[in-house]
Amino acid sequence: MSLHLIAGGAGFVGVNLAAALLELGHEVVVVDDLSRGTLSAMAPLRAHAGFSFREADCSDPEALDQAVGELEVDEIWHLAANSDIPAGVADYRVDLRQTFLTTASILDVMKRRSIPVLHFASSSAIYGDHGDDLIHENIGPLQPISNYGAMKLASEAQIRAAHEAYLGKASICRFPNVIGTPATHGVILDFVGKLKRTPERLEVLGDGSQQKAYLHVDDLVRAMLHIRDLGERFAVFNVGPIDDGITVREIAERVRDRQCPAADIHFGEGNRGWVGDVPRFRYSVERLLGTGWSPSMGSREAVQRAVDEIIAQEVRG
Amino acid sequence: MSLHLIAGGAGFVGVNLAAALLELGHEVVVVDDLSRGTLSAMAPLRAHAGFSFREADCSDPEALDQAVGELEVDEIWHLAANSDIPAGVADYRVDLRQTFLTTASILDVMKRRSIPVLHFASSSAIYGDHGDDLIHENIGPLQPISNYGAMKLASEAQIRAAHEAYLGKASICRFPNVIGTPATHGVILDFVGKLKRTPERLEVLGDGSQQKAYLHVDDLVRAMLHIRDLGERFAVFNVGPIDDGITVREIAERVRDRQCPAADIHFGEGNRGWVGDVPRFRYSVERLLGTGWSPSMGSREAVQRAVDEIIAQEVRG
Repeated sequence: MSLHLIAGGAGFVGVNLAAALLELGHEVVVVDDLSRGTLSAMAPLRAHAGFSFREADCSDPEALDQAVGELEVDEIWHLAANSDIPAGVADYRVDLRQTFLTTASILDVMKRRSIPVLHFASSSAIYGDHGDDLIHENIGPLQPISNYGAMKLASEAQIRAAHEAYLGKASICRFPNVIGTPATHGVILDFVGKLKRTPERLEVLGDGSQQKAYLHVDDLVRAMLHIRDLGERFAVFNVGPIDDGITVREIAERVRDRQCPAADIHFGEGNRGWVGDVPRFRYSVERLLGTGWSPSMGSREAVQRAVDEIIAQEVRG
Repeated sequence: MSLHLIAGGAGFVGVNLAAALLELGHEVVVVDDLSRGTLSAMAPLRAHAGFSFREADCSDPEALDQAVGELEVDEIWHLAANSDIPAGVADYRVDLRQTFLTTASILDVMKRRSIPVLHFASSSAIYGDHGDDLIHENIGPLQPISNYGAMKLASEAQIRAAHEAYLGKASICRFPNVIGTPATHGVILDFVGKLKRTPERLEVLGDGSQQKAYLHVDDLVRAMLHIRDLGERFAVFNVGPIDDGITVREIAERVRDRQCPAADIHFGEGNRGWVGDVPRFRYSVERLLGTGWSPSMGSREAVQRAVDEIIAQEVRG
């Protein structure tokens, strides 16, 4: 059993990953500045003796090093990032600090302390718009269209260089849209929140034709642990469902049907929700499938389940 | 005629670019913190009425903005970077600040001031080791093996995202090894310096079999101006000679023959000079050749000319 540090572990993916690692018998320490993650999200983890939390800003190497303190960390999961893409488009400093300087700082501390293994939560946003081309791990050119995607790519680049110099093992997992609870942002939470405020009417940005693939966080965490277990020296994997996704229209209808069946849905115009959003996206997970992992849900099932979970969290929670 | 700001313009490539722009009748303002560039390198530029210099740290957006002051800048050439690769391998903060945060800061100032055109000096170091594969602009995966390459890639990513949001035009020129004067670092300058200290003996790191392509700075500046004149909204080009380069052994012999013909050359072992150095590198410039540019010199001629220029600078200067 090992000691795992999860940077940014008080967020949505972090608490799910922590629960899975604890379940496997590992020790887990979460380091988070609570700027987006919350203490309440971690509440269920506190039942485990192997869990601890230390508050620190992971983008500050001194603060992070101090937070690690006396711990002998075996592996770091770097999940610290800005999760508000439009905020990063408006002000580049948000992703610079939260999404990229966290990577620089974590690598700094790993080098000082000879912590040998890093798992990095990267993003499909590093690729940018490739039209109808299937996006596999080696496609080029990389052309992120948001600062979020740019700073995830920047992080990958720095991890690659660190691996050449001193890092023992690194895995990079490129996340698609991930859904589930505890939800803090995203289209389902938006819709649920809107219907909570105006139960008779749901306003949708864009014409609803935008299509995206969604992975349930349970499948994501299984994939992350699976990639860890492969034990490759430097691993890069897309993670996602096997389908091409479902439309915003379908998500809106699902939320409406489960939450306020009598509500009217009103669509806007255009198929692009906001700057930094790629309208169509064909994501290949062939490489990961080839190693024996497969998702237990498609995009539709993932959305169906997450809608129920998020309504439970927001409305009945 | 336009007003061109050259960030990092007191360095080797910058002063050559400035001279060419002034020659074409443009106005040029160099902004540089003189950490690597020097006032003496800019001395020949001061004869031009259209030239000015402002000292500032380009990685600090407030300092850069203040340096620009009242100027109505039309185009920015971003050449500010750490040029000491091993220094960046030893301490990631060197490239973080000098190679990457300069990009973030320059983009910040361009957004504030609506400066529409950026030309970025990127590097073949973004690609990393691809064995015998020919490296064209769209090859993947990108796997830089030095912090320098990583922070150049990070810069490209941020420029791509800025172009999506507000930047009018951007060109990215991926430099190979560039040689000429005023030389501040590099293998030729090393050899000339060694022979100046010990005229009877030249020590070479590695066995001399390492082969690299070299471009003379005159050809590079012609390429940069050519790419500018193409006027593409987002241009990415490899720049380099058409050959696969020449060996360290040949460079050592050339320097010896021109500087101290009686000296003995002593080679070390292995074909890798230092961390961050890719042993073999096949670089495609097909895309740029297709637009009508071609280099006037091959690697061998570029080295021959640069050896004479650098000996003149160091020994007879």
